[in-house]
Amino acid sequence: MTDVILVLNAGSSSIKFRAYYVEGDVADGELGLGLHGQVEALFSAPHFIAYDQHGAQVGEKHWGDGAKLSHEDGIQTISDFLTSHRGDSRLIAVGHRVVHGGEKFAKSVLATPQVLDELDKLTPLAPLHQPHNLKPIRIVAAMHPHLPQVACFDTAFHRSQAELAQAFALPESITSRGVRRYGFHGLSYEYIAQALPDFSARAAAGRTIVAHLGNGASMCAMQAGRSVASTMGFTAVDGLPMGTRCGSLDPGVILYLLEELKMDAHAIEDLIYKESGLLGVSGVSGDMRKLLASDAPRARFAIDLYAYRIGREIGSLAAALQGLDALVFTAGIGENSAEVRRRAAQQAAWLGIELDGAANDAGGPRISTPSSNVEVWTIPTDEELMIARHTQAVIGTL
Amino acid sequence: MTDVILVLNAGSSSIKFRAYYVEGDVADGELGLGLHGQVEALFSAPHFIAYDQHGAQVGEKHWGDGAKLSHEDGIQTISDFLTSHRGDSRLIAVGHRVVHGGEKFAKSVLATPQVLDELDKLTPLAPLHQPHNLKPIRIVAAMHPHLPQVACFDTAFHRSQAELAQAFALPESITSRGVRRYGFHGLSYEYIAQALPDFSARAAAGRTIVAHLGNGASMCAMQAGRSVASTMGFTAVDGLPMGTRCGSLDPGVILYLLEELKMDAHAIEDLIYKESGLLGVSGVSGDMRKLLASDAPRARFAIDLYAYRIGREIGSLAAALQGLDALVFTAGIGENSAEVRRRAAQQAAWLGIELDGAANDAGGPRISTPSSNVEVWTIPTDEELMIARHTQAVIGTL
Repeated sequence: MTDVILVLNAGSSSIKFRAYYVEGDVADGELGLGLHGQVEALFSAPHFIAYDQHGAQVGEKHWGDGAKLSHEDGIQTISDFLTSHRGDSRLIAVGHRVVHGGEKFAKSVLATPQVLDELDKLTPLAPLHQPHNLKPIRIVAAMHPHLPQVACFDTAFHRSQAELAQAFALPESITSRGVRRYGFHGLSYEYIAQALPDFSARAAAGRTIVAHLGNGASMCAMQAGRSVASTMGFTAVDGLPMGTRCGSLDPGVILYLLEELKMDAHAIEDLIYKESGLLGVSGVSGDMRKLLASDAPRARFAIDLYAYRIGREIGSLAAALQGLDALVFTAGIGENSAEVRRRAAQQAAWLGIELDGAANDAGGPRISTPSSNVEVWTIPTDEELMIARHTQAVIGTL
Repeated sequence: MTDVILVLNAGSSSIKFRAYYVEGDVADGELGLGLHGQVEALFSAPHFIAYDQHGAQVGEKHWGDGAKLSHEDGIQTISDFLTSHRGDSRLIAVGHRVVHGGEKFAKSVLATPQVLDELDKLTPLAPLHQPHNLKPIRIVAAMHPHLPQVACFDTAFHRSQAELAQAFALPESITSRGVRRYGFHGLSYEYIAQALPDFSARAAAGRTIVAHLGNGASMCAMQAGRSVASTMGFTAVDGLPMGTRCGSLDPGVILYLLEELKMDAHAIEDLIYKESGLLGVSGVSGDMRKLLASDAPRARFAIDLYAYRIGREIGSLAAALQGLDALVFTAGIGENSAEVRRRAAQQAAWLGIELDGAANDAGGPRISTPSSNVEVWTIPTDEELMIARHTQAVIGTL
């Protein structure tokens, strides 16, 4: 009988799942990836797909264009699939990605009804994500009332930051409501922090900036693997420009949109979350691969702006670290686009970064020259494995 | 008969004036400060005060608490005073500070009725300042229809910045309306750029960050005296925390204030312009001198945050410059607070900045050690003299 930890990562219209086999003791056995896949496009053209540990497709289902599945339907689909493929395995816990742990949750936690009530209260801090993250926990609890479930937070890793790095210059009447810089992508950064010793003792022990460049994008300054500062702030729209998000923006622009363009909060939210960033600037696409393949001047400008803003933020984060030993690229764009890494590193050349062009084209892991003052690495992230590790750790204490 | 250029710097509730004597030729004679002063508290407790070129008080008037003067009254007061003290001088032009020149005005310009109409159209970009800046030009034009008047812009100096430094990652539907990073305090930065060769050939020709730390505060990255990047963006609320302004703020915070706290645009504007920054964080005062004299933990935190944010922005601006040769402090706090300079320089120690403690305490001008990798200077700014120089240059071409 093999113990299995299931990881669920639920967004507004999709649910990803990964089953990990615990090899050996529950508390500290190695985790091996087993069945995994997702239900996507829940409300437009639902599609379930699943793979085994070797990456071979072992399940698929279409519901057709215009069909609608609830999150309950989606989780039931995943549950039915896993039950029919369980063999001699036994589900011992479910780990969930939860975007917001607020000021209180600096660690992953058993998702008891009391904890869920507290996490509900953080919904105003992340109205677009938090409800979707919490719903699957309740759905699974209804299906399996005695199964331990663990909430793992994108914010927790950053709670080690000094107050100065988390503070906005706002009065206490506002900040006391939890308006501060939380930082996100924490599960990705924590995975990289745990992986760093396998790549470089200097990067693991020193001043390292990790660039998580995916559809969402942020950077984190780490000192000896602990978060010191991050580009994402109160929400996941701050910092670097992303596929469709604007990143840092003068707050006066929002007032201008309200007062002069008469936009309401909802329209502004759509603008800065869904119509800006690479998509908005290029007018072509929010997908970096398409922009890199395009000759349109606005597409080139969007890529230039992306690299420029990464360069400016590297300067700001290096200031938080008082110097720089290593730069790590991760997530979709960071792991796969040699061209984006090349441009970003160029913007940071003044810090003594020298990229090894051939190593960069080959995908690393080390992509800096031996004489580079700053080591540069490409390291694949694995947020789901991090969630599984947290889940294992929490249930190991029960 | 001495030619005089009058400089007017009008805010929402005050009008500052400085009369400059042109020594020699109108087009390129030296400018000497003559009578100067201000009318302040126009709408609460109006008070006029004037000094001569030696700093001796030569005029004062109180209207009493609760009295109200219009801008017309204020300018008439200044005009009456200057007329009664004109001696053998002759007013040849008036120069005005105008906060916003938009994308079009990259230089000071003769304030014709056509130009004023164009500047009116920029009011939505600076609703709190632009109307107050333009009103005195029209008042003076009504009094002296044939007197040349020149509009000098706080934004013009930054129009040399690359598009990348001016761009927000927003769609063209928004940016085409002029939503971009303008940068402000340009008259101060231009004055410093012109003064730099008198202090340091390296700072004048190289990569220099100027920190204008006054009641408003911003920093400008200059390459050979030209603006490359600045911390203030679309409005004067972005970038560094200031006396009562928050500086950089996740735009998602504004959406939170709208949607969750049900604040309206006006209340948010008051919050981020008037109730934040040093005042909001400390809960004590927006005046740096009072905070430095206070033992309250929140006052100390406000100063720490101010220095920390300066340090982060120095890193970001150094990235825009690809390195740093010199750092210059100017404006009220920058010129007068050795303690703020010390703390800011400490945050930038990683760039090779070494402050000379005694020189810093003595006020400079050079406050770095001979072995410091980066020169650090304290240079008093003079925005009004810059306006007078621009005015002289524009009328010299008529």
